[in-house]
Amino acid sequence: MSDGRPYGGDLDQLCINTIRTLSMDAVQKANSGHPGTPMALAPLAYVIWTRHLRHNPRDPKWIDRDRFILSAGHASMLLYSMLYLTGYGLELDDLKNFRQWESKTPGHPEYGLTVGVETTTGPLGQGFANGVGMAMAEAHIAAQFNTPEHKPIDHHVYAICSDGDLMEGVASEAGSIAGHLQLGKLIYFWDDNKITIEGSTDLAFTEDLLQRFAGYGWHTDRVEDVNDLEALDAAIRRAKEDPRPSMIAVRTVIGYGSPNRAGSEKAHGEALGEEEVKLSKQQLGWPTTDTFWVPDEALRHMRQAGEKGQQMQDEWKRRYDAFAAAEPELAKRLEDALARRLPEGWDADIPTWSKDDKPLATRAASGKAINAIARHVPWLMGGSADLAGSNNTHIDGVGDFEPQSYDGRNLHFGVREHAMGSLMNGMTLHGGVRVYGGTFLIFSDYMKPPVRLAALMEQPTLYIYTHDSVGLGEDGPTHQPIEQLASLRAVPGLVDLRPGDANETAEAWRFAMEYTEGPVFMALTRQGLPIVDRAVFGAASGLRKGAYVLAEAEGELRAILIATGSEVSVAMEAREQLQAEGIGTRVVSMPSWTLFSRQPREYQDEVLPPEIDARVAVEAASPMGWERWVGRAGRVVGISHFGASAPAKEIFKQLGFSADNVAAKAKEALGIASGEGEEAGLAAAGPTKEGTDEGKQS
Amino acid sequence: MSDGRPYGGDLDQLCINTIRTLSMDAVQKANSGHPGTPMALAPLAYVIWTRHLRHNPRDPKWIDRDRFILSAGHASMLLYSMLYLTGYGLELDDLKNFRQWESKTPGHPEYGLTVGVETTTGPLGQGFANGVGMAMAEAHIAAQFNTPEHKPIDHHVYAICSDGDLMEGVASEAGSIAGHLQLGKLIYFWDDNKITIEGSTDLAFTEDLLQRFAGYGWHTDRVEDVNDLEALDAAIRRAKEDPRPSMIAVRTVIGYGSPNRAGSEKAHGEALGEEEVKLSKQQLGWPTTDTFWVPDEALRHMRQAGEKGQQMQDEWKRRYDAFAAAEPELAKRLEDALARRLPEGWDADIPTWSKDDKPLATRAASGKAINAIARHVPWLMGGSADLAGSNNTHIDGVGDFEPQSYDGRNLHFGVREHAMGSLMNGMTLHGGVRVYGGTFLIFSDYMKPPVRLAALMEQPTLYIYTHDSVGLGEDGPTHQPIEQLASLRAVPGLVDLRPGDANETAEAWRFAMEYTEGPVFMALTRQGLPIVDRAVFGAASGLRKGAYVLAEAEGELRAILIATGSEVSVAMEAREQLQAEGIGTRVVSMPSWTLFSRQPREYQDEVLPPEIDARVAVEAASPMGWERWVGRAGRVVGISHFGASAPAKEIFKQLGFSADNVAAKAKEALGIASGEGEEAGLAAAGPTKEGTDEGKQS
Repeated sequence: MSDGRPYGGDLDQLCINTIRTLSMDAVQKANSGHPGTPMALAPLAYVIWTRHLRHNPRDPKWIDRDRFILSAGHASMLLYSMLYLTGYGLELDDLKNFRQWESKTPGHPEYGLTVGVETTTGPLGQGFANGVGMAMAEAHIAAQFNTPEHKPIDHHVYAICSDGDLMEGVASEAGSIAGHLQLGKLIYFWDDNKITIEGSTDLAFTEDLLQRFAGYGWHTDRVEDVNDLEALDAAIRRAKEDPRPSMIAVRTVIGYGSPNRAGSEKAHGEALGEEEVKLSKQQLGWPTTDTFWVPDEALRHMRQAGEKGQQMQDEWKRRYDAFAAAEPELAKRLEDALARRLPEGWDADIPTWSKDDKPLATRAASGKAINAIARHVPWLMGGSADLAGSNNTHIDGVGDFEPQSYDGRNLHFGVREHAMGSLMNGMTLHGGVRVYGGTFLIFSDYMKPPVRLAALMEQPTLYIYTHDSVGLGEDGPTHQPIEQLASLRAVPGLVDLRPGDANETAEAWRFAMEYTEGPVFMALTRQGLPIVDRAVFGAASGLRKGAYVLAEAEGELRAILIATGSEVSVAMEAREQLQAEGIGTRVVSMPSWTLFSRQPREYQDEVLPPEIDARVAVEAASPMGWERWVGRAGRVVGISHFGASAPAKEIFKQLGFSADNVAAKAKEALGIASGEGEEAGLAAAGPTKEGTDEGKQS
Repeated sequence: MSDGRPYGGDLDQLCINTIRTLSMDAVQKANSGHPGTPMALAPLAYVIWTRHLRHNPRDPKWIDRDRFILSAGHASMLLYSMLYLTGYGLELDDLKNFRQWESKTPGHPEYGLTVGVETTTGPLGQGFANGVGMAMAEAHIAAQFNTPEHKPIDHHVYAICSDGDLMEGVASEAGSIAGHLQLGKLIYFWDDNKITIEGSTDLAFTEDLLQRFAGYGWHTDRVEDVNDLEALDAAIRRAKEDPRPSMIAVRTVIGYGSPNRAGSEKAHGEALGEEEVKLSKQQLGWPTTDTFWVPDEALRHMRQAGEKGQQMQDEWKRRYDAFAAAEPELAKRLEDALARRLPEGWDADIPTWSKDDKPLATRAASGKAINAIARHVPWLMGGSADLAGSNNTHIDGVGDFEPQSYDGRNLHFGVREHAMGSLMNGMTLHGGVRVYGGTFLIFSDYMKPPVRLAALMEQPTLYIYTHDSVGLGEDGPTHQPIEQLASLRAVPGLVDLRPGDANETAEAWRFAMEYTEGPVFMALTRQGLPIVDRAVFGAASGLRKGAYVLAEAEGELRAILIATGSEVSVAMEAREQLQAEGIGTRVVSMPSWTLFSRQPREYQDEVLPPEIDARVAVEAASPMGWERWVGRAGRVVGISHFGASAPAKEIFKQLGFSADNVAAKAKEALGIASGEGEEAGLAAAGPTKEGTDEGKQS
């Protein structure tokens, strides 16, 4: 080039090509990854980060920072390049370790692993919805704490979305909510590259996307060439001025700069190859000899983000201090919320129920606990996927979170379970709120991906799953969970809680509010459950250990009945029968497999003494996994087929959830009953009778 | 009324109010259900069924019938009333048994249980997407078999959708695909009642829905009052003329006729109450004394559907016979397709691999099997959620299913896993095709609801889940399945297949093509697996029994290694080590828990002799449920935490999937190794070490 410098004096282009070549080189070195999208989007990331993004690499947790989400997580090298160049602590060696064991630069961006990554992306559509959740939290905090004079919270959320992100249903659900809620702080970009993995978007994606988003109530705009930095800049300025959420379609060419792969799906998911990397660098006017080359001018220019960011934060801090001086009470409340600090006596109003109270559904007990806690914890908010009345998730007297009342604490997610889960992740990641979301347990299937991501990100989201068994009755098999408990218990790190009565439910809420290491779900009944007499039996606080001795055996311990939720009372009745026959029987309430698994072996053996083989697990759900607790000689009274539409009592009777049947199984396990050889025990080779009885129930 | 008759001579109104009052009465008698929507939609159902729906109650399986889907399944009494009144065999007593044990009228419509129900609905959004799948099957069959002279297949698909249906992401995904595919046979109705369970739709659903659907490429229309039968009729006629799929917004009042509940969410989900039922009947000019009253004129009028339907089908049969006479070959092919009749030698081209072949990924073996079968089975079609190249799902030389080529057999679902599953259900229910769909195993989470419904409906859908473990390597924990196998195995009736090498994969395809009782999924590797020497070891046909002895112990049988998929070769290596030390070790390949569970106890005990306690299960996935097979003294080499981004070999080494580790575990189980007391066995109380090692891996 004219002056012999590799960028003809254009510093912007130098930085942009540095991003492109770092991405190419890292993917090439790993011989794995996605080079094409970072090469295409480098100008967009550059304009956002250098001209608009309010962030401070020196304090990545600054609460009022703009959030940047790479929803197209497969383009992770774009984000890693930006984090390195702007000085978040990632070094060139980290980029050279892209996709290697224990590196800080995994295949897809992981929250908590890499400083500056706002959320874990890769599963498409999730980043889009997380950003909407972040904007919801921003709006809620601003409504509570900003005053005419002071604005402690006032930031944007930027996200770059791929075609795939926008094809996923979760993005549609979240887009509709964002439009309804008029979240004007959202500035989203659609990487309109006309390419998907299988080829041209003409194969499956020809909708008028901007018209769809206009239908959701979004401001829509278009930039014809991502390399036109001024056009990008102008579009972002228009988006900031528009009160609606913004979707900006940006035309890009995947693999931009690669002479033989640009514009082709071949640039998407594999390294370009040594030769093509060379040719691409040539085309970009880049030295082809060394790899991971970073021009000093580019690094110096990009690293100004540190100084600029610190100035922005200092300026904000001055404004914040003025706010704190003028509104000390508000400031304290805000700081408590951000720290999720539970106030003195936060749980004082949670009721306790006595054996004389009439049976109560655990969903109802949960509703009372929510309201008792919400009175003391202003940063607790939540809602339901249009089932608030059934899930008992409504907080009385705190209003709805709606466009005209962002300070409201009741969330209306609509019939959008998947978005609910993803929005909850975004709100939780943003901070300043603790959020719960409710639906029927069966519909946890609709929101599995964000539940898993909450566990992977170790975020304390809280799921209220009611109607937790065939005990919901007439709605029938489409609404009756069977395998959902097993499915959720298998998610690493997700805490399961299926309380056995109202007092265990209260304890579940105490635990959940104090537990912040990861997500928790509660499985709650539609139907009323008798209140266990805690004066006689084990204390509900045993829930914290996952399982505990609820009723001790009278006389020599011979059999153990293990039950959860609505089946605890069935086990208690069965115990009465067995004791009446002189069989010393213990009832173990096991509301949480995960918490019990985390107990020391000593405690586990105390509750389930290894020498006791006669064990019966009772749970109105799939028997999957119960063998772990009942062992080889045990029995599982479960359900290995779909449910049926009928009144709950009838279903329980028909499916064997009766004291008689449970007692009979215990006697089988003890070898007392005879003539039942063919179902004699859970021999290691085989399942219980329930375990093989497959196919439809009704 | 003037002439003393309860309908003032208006037969249409008489029939409509019969539908309304039957629905009210049935819900009231069950004291459970959803009265408001049937009351609101009665006129729409009446106009569709009496003026447009081509159907024959005397032959509900007539292949060229129009399909009618009540996507708003909670309004089941609307459908049951229509089926009774038009003569599908439902009787008044069935309506009186609404929501009772073993009745034909469960809470939500169930395919296979009630004649005339085209698909199981209730989980929202599913019916919408099932209908799109039915229209895809219709278009495909028509493109293959219709000629300029003859049209054996030419029918519409009608669906009534609620607000909730249209809020669900799966409906957005399916709506986008339907628009892209220009499926003009779709005539959908939006029950625009402005009410959701939590209250007004203003709470969460204010998007411009018709603009959204226009963005998808749909014809949109509006009817201001559902009681305006002529306006409904005209809108349907316009929809039939328009080449695009049609979405007709129909303004309704939930609980229409109920003086105190009309227009309120209170009319949605509970019985009106004796008194309100009376008042509603009064308002509708109905006798209030008796319940389930059906005027003779109404029944006579509606039952004409039988005669009319038979005439339509007879007329079609004449046309069909002319087609069959003119195109005997086509007709035979069509009949084979409808009967899913596998031709002689359909599997002759499926390759067999020998031990000398180089390692092959099971996804690659699957791709070869698909192509070998597709050559002989013209009604096999499928595709992927934009991962065809990775899932190896492409059929060579048969073209793409696209608007200009509906005869193509490669489906491009786009990045829409949830819709893919629901479309597959619709295509399968329609008949005439056998369809498979592929994605990464991790993204089975995105499509859990339709997989469950396929199992509930016992439909033979086929899921090709590749990249089935941490063995996918660098993409990292967001893409590495851990709990997905457990989660899918827990679905009642779903057949799991995780073949251990190329030949087991071929056998998996043989089994899957012949198995029609329900859905099947295959978990397939990204990485290459060595080919087991079938001359020496057990035959791959053992897959059909779920588990079989792959390698017998030499000498006395002392230990059993149980493995699936990519871990089979690890177990085989470990066996070599153990045998070298004189420990008689059997390797059991267990590609399917479900199929093995269905074997007689004798066979199960043959494969896993109860007297052998030293068992080690090896699977690179959650250990959940393996205790069932290894028993109390066994070991599970699994993964109870999330994966990591790194090359596959490195990950397997780090996580203990090595012959050394597996052999060591076997020796532990035999009590040979010492000093490992704390993990000595899977005592019933506790998990394996792997089982408690939670939290993030990297």
